[in-house]
Amino acid sequence: MEAKFEDYWEELRNEIISELPSYGNMPQEGIDWIERCINYTVPGGKMNRGKSVLVSLQCILKRELTEDEIKKANILGWAIEWLQALFLVSDDIMDASITRRGQPCWYKNEDVGLIAINDTLILESCIYKLLKKYFRSEKYYIDIVELFHEISYTTELGQLIDLITAPENKVNLDKFSMDKYIWIVRYKTAFYSFYLPVALAMIMAGIDNEQSLKVAKDILIPLGEYFQVQDDYLDCYGDPKFIGKIGTDIQDNKCSWLVNQALKICTPEQREILNENYGQNDPVKIQKVKDLYKELKIEELYKQYEEESYQRISDMISKVDPNVVSPDVFTKFMNRIYKRTK
Amino acid sequence: MEAKFEDYWEELRNEIISELPSYGNMPQEGIDWIERCINYTVPGGKMNRGKSVLVSLQCILKRELTEDEIKKANILGWAIEWLQALFLVSDDIMDASITRRGQPCWYKNEDVGLIAINDTLILESCIYKLLKKYFRSEKYYIDIVELFHEISYTTELGQLIDLITAPENKVNLDKFSMDKYIWIVRYKTAFYSFYLPVALAMIMAGIDNEQSLKVAKDILIPLGEYFQVQDDYLDCYGDPKFIGKIGTDIQDNKCSWLVNQALKICTPEQREILNENYGQNDPVKIQKVKDLYKELKIEELYKQYEEESYQRISDMISKVDPNVVSPDVFTKFMNRIYKRTK
Repeated sequence: MEAKFEDYWEELRNEIISELPSYGNMPQEGIDWIERCINYTVPGGKMNRGKSVLVSLQCILKRELTEDEIKKANILGWAIEWLQALFLVSDDIMDASITRRGQPCWYKNEDVGLIAINDTLILESCIYKLLKKYFRSEKYYIDIVELFHEISYTTELGQLIDLITAPENKVNLDKFSMDKYIWIVRYKTAFYSFYLPVALAMIMAGIDNEQSLKVAKDILIPLGEYFQVQDDYLDCYGDPKFIGKIGTDIQDNKCSWLVNQALKICTPEQREILNENYGQNDPVKIQKVKDLYKELKIEELYKQYEEESYQRISDMISKVDPNVVSPDVFTKFMNRIYKRTK
Repeated sequence: MEAKFEDYWEELRNEIISELPSYGNMPQEGIDWIERCINYTVPGGKMNRGKSVLVSLQCILKRELTEDEIKKANILGWAIEWLQALFLVSDDIMDASITRRGQPCWYKNEDVGLIAINDTLILESCIYKLLKKYFRSEKYYIDIVELFHEISYTTELGQLIDLITAPENKVNLDKFSMDKYIWIVRYKTAFYSFYLPVALAMIMAGIDNEQSLKVAKDILIPLGEYFQVQDDYLDCYGDPKFIGKIGTDIQDNKCSWLVNQALKICTPEQREILNENYGQNDPVKIQKVKDLYKELKIEELYKQYEEESYQRISDMISKVDPNVVSPDVFTKFMNRIYKRTK
């Protein structure tokens, strides 16, 4: 039976842990700490990003993959999950979050606290350990190392603008704008979640020229943007039964698509309502924001945005030259997220 | 006139800043933030580490260097300074430090706070941006990228053991030991401060085989250890006029050479005195620890350690095969730190 994505976890974790004693007999408590940290923070998500590398490679090569190709694609997938882990650990500290994936955030563990900052750096280092271990002899080794560097930087820039635009404790809607929102979403989420898995598969498949990667980027970044706008929509209008949580974007002063859309079309009086009620953890105020969204028909505008995005992106996909890269790669992503409810 | 190390700063900063608008018109406030962050955190140290790359390269090649070699060595030096900056920014948050290099720690700036966590990741990304920009076409490019990865990991492991051995708020001397102390010092400080600059120079000079690098490591890691033990000694016994600060290791529960030496030789009764008085910000208790150090002749034991280290390391240097790497590299370092008072 073919190994599943999840089945590679143990080997990769062991790869990291079993090397540690070679660091001058590293004290055992440190080895135990790192094992606990990576077990706690890396697996346990939906793993869509990680699994996408293999799926994309299959779409691109259109033939049965060798065992080695399957393994390598899945290891690159795990490297993305590792990258996400370090961003989530550090985001949670900066956002003062309480829970993540149904358990306390890593830094919320009693003995962890701000040591988690150093753990994010360790999580990041593990990525390059794994790339070196499994890809050093591949001719595309430096390309994937550089890609991880570049996409990390991109994500950090997105996170920076998000942090200085919407600080948790200081509501100032003048800092928001739809342009800035779109920028944040693309840089903070779309590059690492949508472009990175496909770009890694393309590089593995030998499609590593700038032009082909640009074709992928031009489709996948808008797709990632659409995905995040959906996320913002579901936070307010989704069914908690499906999405598994009750949205808190309004009280958390999040720079969400909904509030940016509202700010774009509201009257000065309506803007005043937003100024007075957004970003505060008070059920009456939250309701006032929701009422205003209703008045402004934000939900309908979202449906319009969704249809337009779908059309626009489908149109781009239909124009992809199959000799450059199989359009199936993009269709797969699109079908997975169009009109999702969770 | 030949450009000095400091003169390269502006070009490197501009390299990072001028590229940012190409990230989809990054909002100006983000560009300003990064410029402010790197200006605040990267320059302004003693820059010994950064300057060592060029000095080492000169010792190794023993000929006049080309302008390009000088520039490249200094850029690698700045990359070390950049690496140190990210470690200092994150250490300061984790240690709840107040000042650094005569100004408030970066995270202590009113509008920064925990956003500094993301800034450490950005600082790290800048290193690889610079390596890519200036070294991509060199055949040793991947070697220096891997070296920065490896030494970052090493330093993070050292920082981890330090953090879990000597938490600021919970004094437990049972966690200390001289072995663990030495391990922490080597991993947290010696690799990036002593081995990294020389290894970079060796790689630039084409001396990139495992054996030669091991010769350097075997000398520079003990040298870095000796340097840090001096630091711990000077914290308690140095003249504040020279070292520029008043030591606080005793009250800060630091896992210092002095306390580990004391723990190693004290009686159970004397250990009780340490348990009761170490790691507390109370002048009477600090004095009791200092009195015990005196009783145990810790200062004399330090002088012994210093002489032994000097002899042992000088001995190793004298056995270096000049055909592998010039021993001058190591002598330079040794002379700079032996019996230093600041």
